[in-house]
Amino acid sequence: MPKHYTLSEIAQHVGGQVEGDEHLQIAGLSTLESAQSGNLSFLANPRYAKYLKSTNATAVLVAETLEPPKADIAYIRVPNPYLAYAKASALFDWRDDVTPHVATSAVIHCEASVAPTAFIADGAVIGTGSSIGEGVYVGPNVTIGRYCHVGSGTRLEAGVVLYDHVNVGERCLIHSNAVLGADGFGFAPSANGWEKIHQLGGVRIGHGVEIGANTTIDRGALSDTVVEDGAIIDNLVQIAHNVVIGEKTAIAGCTGIAGSTKIGARSTLAGGVGVAGHLVLAEKTHVTAMSLVSRSVTEPGQVVSSGTGQEGHTSWKRNVVRFKQLDSMAKRIALLEQKVENISS
Amino acid sequence: MPKHYTLSEIAQHVGGQVEGDEHLQIAGLSTLESAQSGNLSFLANPRYAKYLKSTNATAVLVAETLEPPKADIAYIRVPNPYLAYAKASALFDWRDDVTPHVATSAVIHCEASVAPTAFIADGAVIGTGSSIGEGVYVGPNVTIGRYCHVGSGTRLEAGVVLYDHVNVGERCLIHSNAVLGADGFGFAPSANGWEKIHQLGGVRIGHGVEIGANTTIDRGALSDTVVEDGAIIDNLVQIAHNVVIGEKTAIAGCTGIAGSTKIGARSTLAGGVGVAGHLVLAEKTHVTAMSLVSRSVTEPGQVVSSGTGQEGHTSWKRNVVRFKQLDSMAKRIALLEQKVENISS
Amino acid sequence: MPKHYTLSEIAQHVGGQVEGDEHLQIAGLSTLESAQSGNLSFLANPRYAKYLKSTNATAVLVAETLEPPKADIAYIRVPNPYLAYAKASALFDWRDDVTPHVATSAVIHCEASVAPTAFIADGAVIGTGSSIGEGVYVGPNVTIGRYCHVGSGTRLEAGVVLYDHVNVGERCLIHSNAVLGADGFGFAPSANGWEKIHQLGGVRIGHGVEIGANTTIDRGALSDTVVEDGAIIDNLVQIAHNVVIGEKTAIAGCTGIAGSTKIGARSTLAGGVGVAGHLVLAEKTHVTAMSLVSRSVTEPGQVVSSGTGQEGHTSWKRNVVRFKQLDSMAKRIALLEQKVENISS
Repeated sequence: MPKHYTLSEIAQHVGGQVEGDEHLQIAGLSTLESAQSGNLSFLANPRYAKYLKSTNATAVLVAETLEPPKADIAYIRVPNPYLAYAKASALFDWRDDVTPHVATSAVIHCEASVAPTAFIADGAVIGTGSSIGEGVYVGPNVTIGRYCHVGSGTRLEAGVVLYDHVNVGERCLIHSNAVLGADGFGFAPSANGWEKIHQLGGVRIGHGVEIGANTTIDRGALSDTVVEDGAIIDNLVQIAHNVVIGEKTAIAGCTGIAGSTKIGARSTLAGGVGVAGHLVLAEKTHVTAMSLVSRSVTEPGQVVSSGTGQEGHTSWKRNVVRFKQLDSMAKRIALLEQKVENISS
Repeated sequence: MPKHYTLSEIAQHVGGQVEGDEHLQIAGLSTLESAQSGNLSFLANPRYAKYLKSTNATAVLVAETLEPPKADIAYIRVPNPYLAYAKASALFDWRDDVTPHVATSAVIHCEASVAPTAFIADGAVIGTGSSIGEGVYVGPNVTIGRYCHVGSGTRLEAGVVLYDHVNVGERCLIHSNAVLGADGFGFAPSANGWEKIHQLGGVRIGHGVEIGANTTIDRGALSDTVVEDGAIIDNLVQIAHNVVIGEKTAIAGCTGIAGSTKIGARSTLAGGVGVAGHLVLAEKTHVTAMSLVSRSVTEPGQVVSSGTGQEGHTSWKRNVVRFKQLDSMAKRIALLEQKVENISS
Repeated sequence: MPKHYTLSEIAQHVGGQVEGDEHLQIAGLSTLESAQSGNLSFLANPRYAKYLKSTNATAVLVAETLEPPKADIAYIRVPNPYLAYAKASALFDWRDDVTPHVATSAVIHCEASVAPTAFIADGAVIGTGSSIGEGVYVGPNVTIGRYCHVGSGTRLEAGVVLYDHVNVGERCLIHSNAVLGADGFGFAPSANGWEKIHQLGGVRIGHGVEIGANTTIDRGALSDTVVEDGAIIDNLVQIAHNVVIGEKTAIAGCTGIAGSTKIGARSTLAGGVGVAGHLVLAEKTHVTAMSLVSRSVTEPGQVVSSGTGQEGHTSWKRNVVRFKQLDSMAKRIALLEQKVENISS
């Protein structure tokens, strides 16, 4: 359903001051470039200030300090326009508020407990001993195992699977087909092949966590795998058994973290990163895209990288050949230095 | 159900000329090496011409120019045997033609519209305002949100999830557990942690697109994420918000593309590639396996790469140590050049 | 349900000798450090021997040769404590034994056959011509296509999808939302774009195989994709059409293997590895994390690697610049060697 707000309602929601007609109706958000009448836009990056002159937006979120260049549109002045845009976006979300509902095709075990304000969609299955909090949204074809807890205000989008003994905090958003609590990849080698180590721990997700589509978070071997409050995890991320993801850490898509590694709070892992097992990364560690982290990072705030960077294929092929000669090149340089030293002396 | 065709039926389907008995019955496709009687095979790569002598195939798709070395089998002569094999393969697909059907356990919202010729399997859920075109196949346990459109002739295999406001074109094939329309990974940093940027755009998939199993295509932040006509995308690919995948571009498995990047038409991304956000890749860009693309590619037809290439572990470890000395090695070479120059002059 | 065993029951299960009171009750497993009364722990790595003195465990699995340093706890002496821990873990698994059950909301085609001892959960869909063996567990919202076979004792966790003609052996464990039998990524280029090569083969999974959550194993183009007995595959792994994974091979998360490649038996692929198509890797090949394998490995037991290793971002950036000068650096070294040679002679 399309949603409408007056400028003053939005200003109040984002904590800003209206400059212009506060009764103007806003029906959506847009960039400055593509805005139409009725849209609210925002100027977060000075690079885009040039679009202020030509935008068709009805109003724009701007910094308190900005000299407004155009008189015929309205402004909401805020301390941080990008943050204000984020807050405003919540007003226009396409999701409806959760209303109490249990679909007839949902299957809820008689010993599960579902809060009266929860929404349980068609095809959802909830196992014995599980409890679903107030205002929780359980999407279509979601499977919740036994002895799980889903905290109030959390959303499990269609197709999410929680195995048994998975605990999700409040106000989380778990995207479709994410799997929480599958077995960690633990096996002991034996003469007959791999002997499975049954994974007896669970998964604990804190409050306000977002987990992307098709992401997997394995249950712990003996104790739990943990994602702390406010962490955000993108799509297709693999989090192995007994990993601990610190508070407010952000992990981009296609990243994999091996078993028992601890990622410090407020860290950022870019896309396609790999982190080896049994490491500890200090707080605010930043890992650049597609890097492999194979050693612990003990100082907070470090930036770590690996890889060779993008290159045209032809020159890259030549350099890759030389990479394999690097050790001999280094030795030849040392020998040259010795010879030149001898000649000079 | 096993399917049978005469050689002339197949020749007509692939646009070729029969050389031999056109009434021969063909019951399946096979390689030259493993063919049995009743099989049609193909010779696309001259390397395999030696197998023509010994194959048990009943007939072989060959180039118009090939000198056939074996008299007792039949041929279909075609301009392009590999393409003809692709066309012939469609005749033997294990999927049945879609027949009108709505399973009793499917749940279709009363304000959704389903074409009378569509097939809706068990456990499928279709939300309000969505429309399902003629001859569409909606597999078991598929979830289609609200206000989606699925174009005629498209197949959504078991477990696919379309969030609200996802638009899929005609004749697409979307494989199991793929997720279209989950939230893009957008958050504004604040003093209290990450403030979610609600993702208000949708997803638009063109006609004739194939999307692999467990692939994720996020909805846009303000405008839509777009996959253009004829693009093919493999399994476990992550396509972030507001990405545009050009027409007929091919993306192999485990690749990730970060937000707002535009991949030009007819490009190919090999497996495990990563593309950073906000880039533009020109048409016909080719990226080799597991490369990281961190800058735009402005010229069409470029091949880009990164990485060091495969190596034995022992020598690799030595060279990796030297990689970290590369800058100092370069400076030592420059110094040596200076010294040798001084000695020589 | 909590499970309890006497020490002698556990000793018998793991093949060890009790040293102490064999009637002691064990209610769970734990590490030495975090053990509580009633827990069984294990000492596999001599590094942790120091914790034997302080552990609160009731009993510990130790090597036959270990000199026990603490008299007031019990021991089970075994040839291999880590393997014994693995075996003991099976006793405490949170999964119940499979009991015969067909949920009322499951949909089983009238021409499918389900063994009387199988468990079919809510929302499961089983297609025509498929057969489900004795003691099989089919989890909630699992989709099994047509003409599949699932061997006895196998578990398909919630949301797993088997396409048509997929054959899974006995005693396998396939984790949630894994997809077996989606189309291999096969297309022939044509003037009009990509012509789909319909994938006419199937998937064959051996006995005792474990497959991780959201992993994808594509069906073969003409013949089958094969995973041999005792192989273990982690989460988010992509196995392309016509790959063969050898017996007891282990593949860690986020790895991708391109079409028609054969991975030898008892190999190990670490996380995030990529293997190009049409390669053959000999038995016991070991690939280190995030390496790209682009050539076959003909000798068994080789270790292969690629990449540059982790580095601080600032020095890494300098070295990456030099990587692109590597070929010219090598030539400058050769020239220097020539000049020094000339000077010296």
